[in-house]
Amino acid sequence: MKVVFIGAGNLATNLGKALFRAGHEIVQVYSRTEESARALADVLKCVYTTDLLEVVRSADIFIISVKDSALPAVASSLQTGREGQFFVHTAGSMPMDTLPFERCGVFYPMQTFSKNKEVDFSVIPCFVEAKDDNDLQLMKTLALTISDTVYELDSENRKYLHLAAVFCCNFANHCFGLGARLLQEHGNVPFSVMLPLIDETAAKLYSMSPREAQTGPAVRWDTNVMDKQLQLLADAPDMQKIYELFSKSIHDDQL
Amino acid sequence: MKVVFIGAGNLATNLGKALFRAGHEIVQVYSRTEESARALADVLKCVYTTDLLEVVRSADIFIISVKDSALPAVASSLQTGREGQFFVHTAGSMPMDTLPFERCGVFYPMQTFSKNKEVDFSVIPCFVEAKDDNDLQLMKTLALTISDTVYELDSENRKYLHLAAVFCCNFANHCFGLGARLLQEHGNVPFSVMLPLIDETAAKLYSMSPREAQTGPAVRWDTNVMDKQLQLLADAPDMQKIYELFSKSIHDDQL
Repeated sequence: MKVVFIGAGNLATNLGKALFRAGHEIVQVYSRTEESARALADVLKCVYTTDLLEVVRSADIFIISVKDSALPAVASSLQTGREGQFFVHTAGSMPMDTLPFERCGVFYPMQTFSKNKEVDFSVIPCFVEAKDDNDLQLMKTLALTISDTVYELDSENRKYLHLAAVFCCNFANHCFGLGARLLQEHGNVPFSVMLPLIDETAAKLYSMSPREAQTGPAVRWDTNVMDKQLQLLADAPDMQKIYELFSKSIHDDQL
Repeated sequence: MKVVFIGAGNLATNLGKALFRAGHEIVQVYSRTEESARALADVLKCVYTTDLLEVVRSADIFIISVKDSALPAVASSLQTGREGQFFVHTAGSMPMDTLPFERCGVFYPMQTFSKNKEVDFSVIPCFVEAKDDNDLQLMKTLALTISDTVYELDSENRKYLHLAAVFCCNFANHCFGLGARLLQEHGNVPFSVMLPLIDETAAKLYSMSPREAQTGPAVRWDTNVMDKQLQLLADAPDMQKIYELFSKSIHDDQL
């Protein structure tokens, strides 16, 4: 298929590379800054522009992958003279109707993308939605060329999926960050000692639910250990609050 | 070496199996309940007892692996007539001096152990401490027969290590559990869709710090998305509080 990318961030870069490798033709890349537009266009062997008015008029799908907060403005700048063209965005938390096009949809690959860390797209679940049934089929076909797991999901349920991803990825990662902070301040132990524990915590979920997998003082409701650990956090009131809230929430979850 | 196990829980079972496979002789297993004492003794090809007074008097090391809350009582029941015998416990959060023995130490393998899920001990970092230098060497030698990573760490710093493990394992796992709860209640999407995201969240830590790896609305401080997600949690005040606290803490961490 012929694809245009509006946006050249981490997600657009990873998705663009996957589509390019699967044999699709990337027609053009747009980015606000020339540097990132050129960088991605080089990789995807295509032309680029930094002017939304110069985005080409002919492609099978136009993928808008910009910051959530910029999405409404970018979409409305593109709006005129786009009859019959199919626009999708990639933002998990934004509803489909953020796009003011007759033919529109959402293509949400659920993963955490960072610069300089390439990901294997084939294992990333992709969630697709479109106003029109034919467009939905087109997106499914496109998605299945790069991912083994493609789901249809409407905007309402996708909101909760995205929120679940915030908990499973961003918040879990912040727990790792708080652990790293404790190690940095006490003892001479590198954070790498935590990696086998973190790997096993993730690996367990292939054979049991998070609730079944839970271990530690809170699930045993070992108030002796919990009280001592709260005292260790006396100088870090934010972590102390998190400790209290999590211990209670873990305990309640087992009831 | 000749090893006695006092306790037959998840940690004792995993540690016992690893030592047995490495060629050590497990002399005896004690557990309060006959069922678990026999089960572990069967695996480790040794005798068992349910009476602390019947714990044998001769072994290179006696490993006490019981619930943290039971540790002081078990240790004090064993105390008399144990001159010259070397006792260690496996509790990350308990100081070495919980043990009232002349020769004592701590052997803390930092991992999350669950029934029915065997772990590869060789990648588990083990933290050792002993009152006497010769005993410390003995423990290091023993630990290196089953693990590639052995650290000396005193009780004070081990407290913080254990607390860091609570954040990296138990609290991160609870984030997975909260994500699972959201998916269960909204849309028809199985929790398994989260596994590639969770795996990647863990895998990133091999090439960057948790702080560098962070993504999502809080690190971008995208108040539009955060406000909408807080509204989605209106019926779950505990998760709403966690969302607020974590978003603020993630944001502060980047300053």
